[in-house]
Amino acid sequence: MDLHLLVDGRRKVASLEEALRDAIAAGRLAAGTRLPPSRTLATDLGIARNSVAEVYARLVAEGRLEARVGAGTWVADRPSAGPATTAPVHRSTRFDLDLRGGLPDGSAFPRTAWARATARALSGASAAALGYSTPEGAAALRVALADYLARARGVVASADDVVVTHGFGELLALAARAVAARGGRRIAVEGYGHVSHRDLLVASGLEPVPLPVDDDGAVVEGLAGASVDAVLLTPAHQFPIGVPLSGARRAAVARWAEQTGGLVVEDDYDGEFRYDRRAIGAMQALAPGHVVYGGTASKSLSPALGLGWGVVPPAWRDDLLAQRRRSGAATDAIAQLALAALIESGDYDRTVRTLRLRYRARRERFEELMTEGAPGSRVVGLAAGIHCLLELPDGVAEHDVSEAAATRGLRVDGLGAYAATPDLVDARPAAMVVGYGAPPAHRFEEALAVVVEAIRVAARRAPGRSSA
Amino acid sequence: MDLHLLVDGRRKVASLEEALRDAIAAGRLAAGTRLPPSRTLATDLGIARNSVAEVYARLVAEGRLEARVGAGTWVADRPSAGPATTAPVHRSTRFDLDLRGGLPDGSAFPRTAWARATARALSGASAAALGYSTPEGAAALRVALADYLARARGVVASADDVVVTHGFGELLALAARAVAARGGRRIAVEGYGHVSHRDLLVASGLEPVPLPVDDDGAVVEGLAGASVDAVLLTPAHQFPIGVPLSGARRAAVARWAEQTGGLVVEDDYDGEFRYDRRAIGAMQALAPGHVVYGGTASKSLSPALGLGWGVVPPAWRDDLLAQRRRSGAATDAIAQLALAALIESGDYDRTVRTLRLRYRARRERFEELMTEGAPGSRVVGLAAGIHCLLELPDGVAEHDVSEAAATRGLRVDGLGAYAATPDLVDARPAAMVVGYGAPPAHRFEEALAVVVEAIRVAARRAPGRSSA
Repeated sequence: MDLHLLVDGRRKVASLEEALRDAIAAGRLAAGTRLPPSRTLATDLGIARNSVAEVYARLVAEGRLEARVGAGTWVADRPSAGPATTAPVHRSTRFDLDLRGGLPDGSAFPRTAWARATARALSGASAAALGYSTPEGAAALRVALADYLARARGVVASADDVVVTHGFGELLALAARAVAARGGRRIAVEGYGHVSHRDLLVASGLEPVPLPVDDDGAVVEGLAGASVDAVLLTPAHQFPIGVPLSGARRAAVARWAEQTGGLVVEDDYDGEFRYDRRAIGAMQALAPGHVVYGGTASKSLSPALGLGWGVVPPAWRDDLLAQRRRSGAATDAIAQLALAALIESGDYDRTVRTLRLRYRARRERFEELMTEGAPGSRVVGLAAGIHCLLELPDGVAEHDVSEAAATRGLRVDGLGAYAATPDLVDARPAAMVVGYGAPPAHRFEEALAVVVEAIRVAARRAPGRSSA
Repeated sequence: MDLHLLVDGRRKVASLEEALRDAIAAGRLAAGTRLPPSRTLATDLGIARNSVAEVYARLVAEGRLEARVGAGTWVADRPSAGPATTAPVHRSTRFDLDLRGGLPDGSAFPRTAWARATARALSGASAAALGYSTPEGAAALRVALADYLARARGVVASADDVVVTHGFGELLALAARAVAARGGRRIAVEGYGHVSHRDLLVASGLEPVPLPVDDDGAVVEGLAGASVDAVLLTPAHQFPIGVPLSGARRAAVARWAEQTGGLVVEDDYDGEFRYDRRAIGAMQALAPGHVVYGGTASKSLSPALGLGWGVVPPAWRDDLLAQRRRSGAATDAIAQLALAALIESGDYDRTVRTLRLRYRARRERFEELMTEGAPGSRVVGLAAGIHCLLELPDGVAEHDVSEAAATRGLRVDGLGAYAATPDLVDARPAAMVVGYGAPPAHRFEEALAVVVEAIRVAARRAPGRSSA
């Protein structure tokens, strides 16, 4: 359901009705598609539940929707009005809830604080600051980030080292292209990680070379023999396994970089969210001349902003900026000034603290529910971030859990979906990567109940468990 | 002077003082650098003139600045305090005013309306709209733009055809990479245009092939024989010559595209600003299946937003989006929702109308002053946009005008700076490309007076004019 995007903020109810009617007429909402409960949609859109219920009722009366108490509301088989649909609609499974690892809770975005920061940034900005933006980003934000990253993540940086990018993804693409432009060909990656990151590396001209991952993080001892020009790591919280890179291995990476001149890209995607004790600092501090440190506001604020940042060694800065100029991309300067204002006012720290408490409570509740509801499962890794690895009870297959969840409208992927090579798929116990940060608060319990139910269903299919 | 970027919006006066002190200590403001008049800086920063004067006075008292009535304020030769500078400072010419063609007036940005639109967009956005942004852009903005472009520019588009990019530059890079990915090698460009655009094309793997430009715009009759795969044009208002592409030539381009399958990239950079009569529509409407139409909010709102848009033929859409995914770039979704809200509320149209009146008045005043102050000069091209071509009196050299302006702190380039090949430099009468839209309102007259003065100084150096 992405109809809400078409809903006009000023006349939400009327435009919700139009949007639904249009989408049904055009076939964007296929017959049989289940609509979200009116309560959910009302919360998401910020309107009264009754108003949504009335819109649904009118469309039912028109024959566009069907409804049955207890079974919900869905698009009617044959809309009684509206033009014939022009093309057959691709009926992919529609997910009502998405628990993929790495997604934050969109409803947690501090809307009021952001609107205030934007207004403050605009009233304080000079005319020149509203001119063409520079490829490295707004000076005010680079100053604020250098200070914040030193304080919160132990990063060694001056404002001149900071480059503002579109999230971590663009930083990774720039770094990879810079490595390729110097003649580099291969980059070591963790054996488990985001497919999208490996795709970006390939598109940038580098071949990803997977390193195994164990309980101390990526097995970096193999770097020296791997003939690679660079390495991409998630040292604070291996994604998605959830372990930190050990101190000895951090030191080994730094030595490798210093001896070979190789470039380290540190993806510090959720370094601010650690619940057990003070977060370990970034590994960048061990070798500031060789590490491109990357962070993002996608978890702490919203992926919609697309604000990310790199701390780039002086020897690589011009290379990355040259790559950025070639792509014509830059970052909205007003959003940058707003983030600078948010950091300087202390609102950013407050937001991170609030989220940390909320995600921590979710994490604890998740472990509790899994222990109760899915005996034999085990939560692995640090108490940190917004996802965890849930090892499945013996014999239960990742694919069966994903499938059982999908038929219940929930997307959750197995560890295999993150493996860099097929031979890694069986290298670790079967496990799901659960993004417990993603669902809005009012649907959190529902989402976890679906996970529990899906594991139970999958367990019935497990070999030797048919009688369980 | 880009110090203002470091000035904190909440405590402007104190932070201005700190910023100046730091910049002098670090050598970023070199000895001898002239500071802007206190009145100018006060306006730019939005603080009282007296406060700036007091800051200057304190720094003069400390020996960091020197001042003389009538001569202004500058950085003292030997700062009496502060650490030794670490590296020799590169003393490039510092421009106080920039009249390069294409720059809008940064002080015209509708700050309040934008802050309001942001707040409205945030209160109306669903949680899902605050998730990861899609490479094509936010649906709400694509809907608003399709409607606006049809209405204001005669573009044939549905929301599905619209792609939101970082200004026109990123759209151009995406289109060029898509052409290259299909095996294209050469792209025709207008013989005069932005160096940065030609650089983007080369970086994207295409060879720019210049077309001559006459009073009917680019000489597109040569397209068929040029063995090119694409063409980049500014049909509404050739940049920087200022003429529109004639109707016959528009039709010829459409025929060429239909017969060869070549791609047309239409840069409609200032189509909204025409002062003589109703703007001609975009040429995209002649061949929607072959034209990538590009527009931007950089002139109508602010380059700082970096919001641009393309209307892309269905046959090219996936190619452009694939290129965007490869770069990791996307556009801030919140700014997109704010622009959608601004368009839907009518505030965008109002802003464009206000700017049109303001720029039109500037254009008329510019012509008036040049007729009076620089006899023999001639303003060429349509009464449109935010720049014009000013042909110089006989014998006056572009370079002499640029140089005389530079010594007076003003940057203005000759037509030669926009020529694609050296042999074009003498193909047209010597002329300056004057961006009369750029200076803030309170410095407009001052800027034009410098242009007049620079032409007079240059005229004294013209051959056979030494006695003039």
